Amino acid sequence: MLNSSYQACIQACSNCALVCETCAASCLREDDVKMMARCIELDRDCADMCAIAAVLMTRDSAYAKAFCKLCAQVCRDCAEECGKHQHDHCQACAEACRKCAEECEKMAA
Amino acid sequence: MLNSSYQACIQACSNCALVCETCAASCLREDDVKMMARCIELDRDCADMCAIAAVLMTRDSAYAKAFCKLCAQVCRDCAEECGKHQHDHCQACAEACRKCAEECEKMAA
Amino acid sequence: MLNSSYQACIQACSNCALVCETCAASCLREDDVKMMARCIELDRDCADMCAIAAVLMTRDSAYAKAFCKLCAQVCRDCAEECGKHQHDHCQACAEACRKCAEECEKMAA
Amino acid sequence: MLNSSYQACIQACSNCALVCETCAASCLREDDVKMMARCIELDRDCADMCAIAAVLMTRDSAYAKAFCKLCAQVCRDCAEECGKHQHDHCQACAEACRKCAEECEKMAA
Repeated sequence: MLNSSYQACIQACSNCALVCETCAASCLREDDVKMMARCIELDRDCADMCAIAAVLMTRDSAYAKAFCKLCAQVCRDCAEECGKHQHDHCQACAEACRKCAEECEKMAA
Repeated sequence: MLNSSYQACIQACSNCALVCETCAASCLREDDVKMMARCIELDRDCADMCAIAAVLMTRDSAYAKAFCKLCAQVCRDCAEECGKHQHDHCQACAEACRKCAEECEKMAA
Repeated sequence: MLNSSYQACIQACSNCALVCETCAASCLREDDVKMMARCIELDRDCADMCAIAAVLMTRDSAYAKAFCKLCAQVCRDCAEECGKHQHDHCQACAEACRKCAEECEKMAA
Repeated sequence: MLNSSYQACIQACSNCALVCETCAASCLREDDVKMMARCIELDRDCADMCAIAAVLMTRDSAYAKAFCKLCAQVCRDCAEECGKHQHDHCQACAEACRKCAEECEKMAA
């Protein structure tokens, strides 16, 4: 395949994008939505960034590395916010974001 | 999780989106790009449709079923076109599209 | 241009996507987030659908008409929900969604 | 509105995304597709980057500035490549990319 050396990072980004979407949608259905507002904001940015990161790596784009550097930062911020909340979807999201940040940092290195 | 009954279809769509991106990018680097033009067109539409299908299911959206019905049709067309070409990336794409079409048809049923 | 007959619908979809993103982000910063949860859900689906509709038309895709038919339905639902709320961003979003639904219905006809 | 100070850049990015999609789709239908392969690659990356840039600014995201800095670079590269080709869609794309790069550079400053 075009991009075999990026596979771990592509999978981490692709997974993180969907886990962030799940977290945002689940937060919106919690009773305490107000308390989850910052989490939802970060989930949406992180989901969109990770989805594009996966696409750029899949295309073997010249911008993949620079993009992953920025994506790692969003993942770190999202992991920190999600980690504050005890909902299962937030804890799962924090873990996916940390894993994705590590892979993106390796890519960008 | 929000969407556990959709997991097989979400994974098929998410995978198909990336395999279509790979196929389009690989086709663009083949010598016979002209012959691959229709394949690239379909890959792009299929990649974008599958990516959104995965997101809508992940969100447990009310539009997921109707969307998957349309997505299945694009996947079938893309599988047919990719299946005509002997490049490995085209054959891999045809298979991912067929698998995704089946899952989307189950979702839409 | 490739797609000159679609220009009105492309512009309506492109505008609606951004107005829905603005509405969702603004709803998340309101005091009564809980009351806005359904509005945010619909804004997100509508934004993503409209963005892809604009892209498919721009590419002169064979799937543009079928997609616009589905997009029109999401726009109608989003317009109805947004129309219930007095926030300026909701009223602006309801209007953009109605306009977009009309253009998508013309495209799909 | 949430993001009134970003309007010029949002419009430039939103427009550039669609003009890049048009250029890629038009290049794929030219006789000399092979010669246009690099143009298509850059159009796709630029379209996706500009679309996300517009969304992040529309949401008033904390990552909008950093993202626009990267987006400006892709726009500059795409403008340079498109500028080499005499097709109307390439010339129109080069102009949209230059305009977008300028707005993104102002945003990132």
